[in-house]
Amino acid sequence: MGQLIQLKEENRDFDFYLSKLKDLSGNDLESINSLILEKIDSKIPLIQEIASHLILSGGKRLRPLLTSCCYNLCKKKDDNDKNYLGLAAAVEFIHAATLLHDDVIDESRKRRGSLTANEIWGNKTSVLVGDFLFSRAFQLMAKYGSTEILKVLADTSVIISEGEILELSNDKNPAINENIYFDVIDGKTASLFSAACKIGAISANTTIEKIEALKSFGTNFGMSFQLIDDAIDYSSSSNNLGKNIGDDFKQGKVTLPIILAYLRSNNNEKEFWKKTIENLHQDQDDFKKAISIIKKYDCIKDTIERAKHFANIAKDSLGVFNESDYKAILINIVNSGLKRVN
Amino acid sequence: MGQLIQLKEENRDFDFYLSKLKDLSGNDLESINSLILEKIDSKIPLIQEIASHLILSGGKRLRPLLTSCCYNLCKKKDDNDKNYLGLAAAVEFIHAATLLHDDVIDESRKRRGSLTANEIWGNKTSVLVGDFLFSRAFQLMAKYGSTEILKVLADTSVIISEGEILELSNDKNPAINENIYFDVIDGKTASLFSAACKIGAISANTTIEKIEALKSFGTNFGMSFQLIDDAIDYSSSSNNLGKNIGDDFKQGKVTLPIILAYLRSNNNEKEFWKKTIENLHQDQDDFKKAISIIKKYDCIKDTIERAKHFANIAKDSLGVFNESDYKAILINIVNSGLKRVN
Repeated sequence: MGQLIQLKEENRDFDFYLSKLKDLSGNDLESINSLILEKIDSKIPLIQEIASHLILSGGKRLRPLLTSCCYNLCKKKDDNDKNYLGLAAAVEFIHAATLLHDDVIDESRKRRGSLTANEIWGNKTSVLVGDFLFSRAFQLMAKYGSTEILKVLADTSVIISEGEILELSNDKNPAINENIYFDVIDGKTASLFSAACKIGAISANTTIEKIEALKSFGTNFGMSFQLIDDAIDYSSSSNNLGKNIGDDFKQGKVTLPIILAYLRSNNNEKEFWKKTIENLHQDQDDFKKAISIIKKYDCIKDTIERAKHFANIAKDSLGVFNESDYKAILINIVNSGLKRVN
Repeated sequence: MGQLIQLKEENRDFDFYLSKLKDLSGNDLESINSLILEKIDSKIPLIQEIASHLILSGGKRLRPLLTSCCYNLCKKKDDNDKNYLGLAAAVEFIHAATLLHDDVIDESRKRRGSLTANEIWGNKTSVLVGDFLFSRAFQLMAKYGSTEILKVLADTSVIISEGEILELSNDKNPAINENIYFDVIDGKTASLFSAACKIGAISANTTIEKIEALKSFGTNFGMSFQLIDDAIDYSSSSNNLGKNIGDDFKQGKVTLPIILAYLRSNNNEKEFWKKTIENLHQDQDDFKKAISIIKKYDCIKDTIERAKHFANIAKDSLGVFNESDYKAILINIVNSGLKRVN
């Protein structure tokens, strides 16, 4: 309990708590990484090369760590079932597969400070290696998952692709409704956070109440996490983890800061958003101008406010658990996640 | 048994036996189609539109029919388990997902006589709807599949994507080794035929000997089927089912007729293949010239010979079964499949 109090009293940044989360997982992260390494293997050398480029190059492993943490939060003393480790690896493979396809869809050139796979090996290869990684996830689930868990992960895969398609249907539309945007990020980001937490709880054979609590924790943490990511892209003072400031704007990607700015803009400013986002006609100083309109209407501040709303629900959902190091780290991860942007 | 003899004595075309296979499946095809319709559904209208375009527009349903036929071939009298219908639908969804991604990779403009989804809705949408369909397949498997069947289908998904990537790694290379090409089509085509047959057998709780026999039947029928498809693309007298003669050539797609032609070509002709396939510099009469070299070296005839080799193994693998209408139709489908090209 000494460590619990220590965790609660500190007020450190996200990376600090991510590293604490790794420590707390004990050997879990190592086991998950071994499973990932094993499943990246393929008789086709190109696959191994691309999969390694993506999966072994500095991913946070946040989602599989959530599975491990939620399992340990719910675990009964004498439970030694290790299937959740295979499922945590499966979650990371689903995540990696969606990243590959996302980068193709978004025509992204950089991820985590390195060139994207589509930039190095082309779109076609990225599509197929994404399919490979998704199939690997499926192998892991089939091996380690119960019927209930398979259903959760299959449903989540459907929800993720629906979220991505909903986003694409609203491509470059700054007038998208805020709630539709929430549906988009609920699908493409929050649903996998949610599934990662939920399958940890299910694997520990805990109560329905606790399973639902962690499902809700994951969803709301995921929403909050994505909204802060959105804000980071317009905030120069953020610790941006390899992503370039202004990338979303350059791609005409509509995220919450733009949605709020558009809703609050006067007619002249609305024309500016149409020109730069809808028609992707961007002049040299347009990003600066975008930032100034976003600031004028407090859109970053309010994006962070929205993120806080979801973060609060996430933290409150943990109310069904007694205090423990695992509960404390989840709370700290959510809180520090908000501080990734100022 | 009357129908069995009738089937054996006829010498009709593939479409005739496909329609017989549908008749023999009784209500199975209708049930499979209902499940497909149900799973095409999505709250995102665009998904339903694209999925319907692909899945409801004249596909042969050959793979799910193989699952049904193999199940019925192995079924014990008092077995009324209907899970194989859900699995047959899953197989069709995997097939549809790979078609969408294939058309993106190949930059195809037409399939089954209609414009491809990537041509109408763009590559990005096709990639994401492919992911959606694959996720739907996964939902069906999770609902209807045993652990053993999940493993078969997960492994098959990995093998399909490895086959596709192996093909892409050898893109526009007319000097590809014939055996590497067999690995490609074993992965991208034969593996799903094989899985479709095998899961039908497993669902019927039959012997390992019969499961292995149908797995082998599927693989070899799939190889034979793909090789005839390859030949069709260079044969004007074929019943081409909506595919345009010369499409493979125009795309620089290397299939067995080209591989054989390249191996048998003199230096001048080898230069022609490099120009037209490797560099995709094609002049107006080049397709005609390609056909004439292919004819000169009997490459269509020998592609069909290779297909016959696999077809023979497929038919012999059925030796473990007693005579029945189901066995007879499988033999007739393989035989008539060879005659799709002259």
